[in-house]
Amino acid sequence: MAQKPSIPKGTRDFSPQEMSRRNYIFDTIKQVFRLYGYRQIETPAMENLSTLMGKYGEEGDKLLFKILNSGDFLKGVDDADIADRNLVKLTNKMCEKGLRYDLTVPFARFVVQYRGQLQMPFKRYQIQPVWRADRPQKGRYREFYQCDADVVGSDSLLNEIELLSMIDMVFKRLRVRVAIKVNNRKVLTGIAEMIGEADKIVDITVAIDKIDKIGIDNVNEELRSKGLTEEAIEKLRPLLEMKGSNAEKLDTLAGLLAGSETGMKGVEELRTVIDGIDSLGHDCEVELDVSLARGLNYYTGTIIEVKALDVQIGSITGGGRYDNLTGVFGMPGLSGVGISFGADRIYDVLNQLELYPESVSQSVKVLFVNFGDKEAVESMRIVKLLREQGVSAELYPDAAKMKKQMGYADSEGIPYVALIGESELESGTVNLKDMVSGTQEQLTPEALVARLKD
Amino acid sequence: MAQKPSIPKGTRDFSPQEMSRRNYIFDTIKQVFRLYGYRQIETPAMENLSTLMGKYGEEGDKLLFKILNSGDFLKGVDDADIADRNLVKLTNKMCEKGLRYDLTVPFARFVVQYRGQLQMPFKRYQIQPVWRADRPQKGRYREFYQCDADVVGSDSLLNEIELLSMIDMVFKRLRVRVAIKVNNRKVLTGIAEMIGEADKIVDITVAIDKIDKIGIDNVNEELRSKGLTEEAIEKLRPLLEMKGSNAEKLDTLAGLLAGSETGMKGVEELRTVIDGIDSLGHDCEVELDVSLARGLNYYTGTIIEVKALDVQIGSITGGGRYDNLTGVFGMPGLSGVGISFGADRIYDVLNQLELYPESVSQSVKVLFVNFGDKEAVESMRIVKLLREQGVSAELYPDAAKMKKQMGYADSEGIPYVALIGESELESGTVNLKDMVSGTQEQLTPEALVARLKD
Repeated sequence: MAQKPSIPKGTRDFSPQEMSRRNYIFDTIKQVFRLYGYRQIETPAMENLSTLMGKYGEEGDKLLFKILNSGDFLKGVDDADIADRNLVKLTNKMCEKGLRYDLTVPFARFVVQYRGQLQMPFKRYQIQPVWRADRPQKGRYREFYQCDADVVGSDSLLNEIELLSMIDMVFKRLRVRVAIKVNNRKVLTGIAEMIGEADKIVDITVAIDKIDKIGIDNVNEELRSKGLTEEAIEKLRPLLEMKGSNAEKLDTLAGLLAGSETGMKGVEELRTVIDGIDSLGHDCEVELDVSLARGLNYYTGTIIEVKALDVQIGSITGGGRYDNLTGVFGMPGLSGVGISFGADRIYDVLNQLELYPESVSQSVKVLFVNFGDKEAVESMRIVKLLREQGVSAELYPDAAKMKKQMGYADSEGIPYVALIGESELESGTVNLKDMVSGTQEQLTPEALVARLKD
Repeated sequence: MAQKPSIPKGTRDFSPQEMSRRNYIFDTIKQVFRLYGYRQIETPAMENLSTLMGKYGEEGDKLLFKILNSGDFLKGVDDADIADRNLVKLTNKMCEKGLRYDLTVPFARFVVQYRGQLQMPFKRYQIQPVWRADRPQKGRYREFYQCDADVVGSDSLLNEIELLSMIDMVFKRLRVRVAIKVNNRKVLTGIAEMIGEADKIVDITVAIDKIDKIGIDNVNEELRSKGLTEEAIEKLRPLLEMKGSNAEKLDTLAGLLAGSETGMKGVEELRTVIDGIDSLGHDCEVELDVSLARGLNYYTGTIIEVKALDVQIGSITGGGRYDNLTGVFGMPGLSGVGISFGADRIYDVLNQLELYPESVSQSVKVLFVNFGDKEAVESMRIVKLLREQGVSAELYPDAAKMKKQMGYADSEGIPYVALIGESELESGTVNLKDMVSGTQEQLTPEALVARLKD
């Protein structure tokens, strides 16, 4: 029953080299999350469908991977259901569980489920895969990781400032140059009010969110098609063409939105956040961008988006404040703010720019060549010494031809090869070869350990 | 649409405290895997059902979680299929994918799929969750982690010695006292031959595997019920009652199995492995146990099992050599040997014995109390300094009552609280309170960093 093995489309295997690179990214993000006092949680891959359904819109419901009930999945399904071939109804009866689609809904569920035990403000991070039955295409997978950090239970804008500071530290450590864009949902509301089209806020933000891609003329065309008056479109133009420093933009906005209470609140919030990150002496590029919208119906305050400066790719991190994360689970009024690092895109950026430190491609530090039983025994003794001192080391398990063993060291990127042959056995030494420079040294075991331990 | 949120039975959420403890275990195991030159891979949560089905027996097929095809899952299902209500047939038509059941089959699939690119011997480790539709009960979950390390492409017994050495290092680092039991499938074959019941090897090993639990009399009763002769049972007794050191047991076995070529091969292999680990100077307790069988049909050479000495619990690690891992995927003749650490049981052991180092319960090192806007700005500046020096620190985001902020530090186990009030702002100092001893110090920012950085 031989079969040509493969994996489901849109999923990936990760080789050791890919894992080293991915771990470098995940570890960097984790370390920063921890430095900022975020605590890790994990939730199950499977959630009840009642938790997931209806949270991502109708399209989202279709993109959930559903798990067939175990045992008799036709229990409760009668012939009429089947004859109708009503997929939604049948799914509801045959499947109780689905794979998590993002980390936000499971987090909201978690907060509500354990509300009695959680200390507020609750700062959590979570790094786990999510699954979506999307059509696979370049850069879009059916299984991918999300890296989320959120604070719930605090309205303070200090949280936003911290998140921006955290973004800066992550990308500084990864050596990726980024532009951080910020906006505020209240400013968007104010803009819609100011141009006399408050009821069209969704259409307006959807359209202006595209300005970088399609230009102002096409944006205006779209706004016209949505029924905005020429007057409204003219009023909007100076906002979209706003130039200058953040301080200048804030002053312009404050002037234009003076008539909107909500809008002015948004301007004040933006000012606090931008001043806050500036006063910390971060030299990251934070830019106020009123066209930034990102899932408008979700965010209620600050909106954040990060783009790589040196690679053409979509946003690599995004987030914002939401005021009703847990309402759908019966716990209204809890405010939260969070960001999500797009690990897969960050991985693409680092690959394109080759930004990995050299240590990432290294597996073990030293390979001991196997010359036979007697030599192997002594090699293993020294390998053990090295490992106890924290130096990764291995002995080639078979007394294969020298060329094969050296080829292994080469292909695995092992920087040192140690040889214990007959003469070394006699003299109690080790011959250490530097695979890069090609130099060889004769060392005592103790000197070898000292040499390789850094 | 408020709903009381919950998670599927048999699955778990992990709180920050649980995650710290679990990470301590996973990180320890990972570090050791790396010191020994194992390289990490990851495979997708979903595999094609064609990869998974038939690999775990009929019972296993039922325990696979199957994923409903997205889109029209009834495509290809005709009315007759439905009318029959043949669950297996319907599942085959409605589901192409399933969740991985263990890490071994995906690893075998990986090795075959990438055989052209892999350097042999290939030493991989993999730490990922697996899913089984088992009936949930205490200590048995539907989602749990496996931590596997395997070498394929090398017949050398040095690999077995390395794995034993690795087990020793993991449990030394975790401070868990263990007994490591070893056996060899060839010895079991030899025993069955020697007592004249070669065809009953499965019944024999299943029965004697239970000797620790049910005693020799019940084992013999079971053997009788399986049709073993009294003579065979009498011949088996001295083997099961074998006492003494490993060397003594090996000599006894060599005497008893002298007539079985396979048996003698097994004795030789055991001797090499046991001598090997002894010669490395490991002081772990490795015990030859001829009753050890563990999934006999799978293993073909060495069998390894680890038990905790101070907690009553099943085996916490196990493994062995298999000679035909990849045959089912059309790649015969590849020998491998590996072990699997039972992370969830190890977690239970560490919890029962309270073996976590103090650092595991610590989240951030220092909390800055928030006295208001002006003080918060200065606090954030110093928090930033600390983080840049690798000290995890946070500022309470709201200027809440002192009692509430101190309560937060307390419940999160934060060891230091820093206060910057009006007088500290004036003098440019920080008041640092040690939450354990209660002592307070007035420090410059630089002295504070030096104090908390260790």
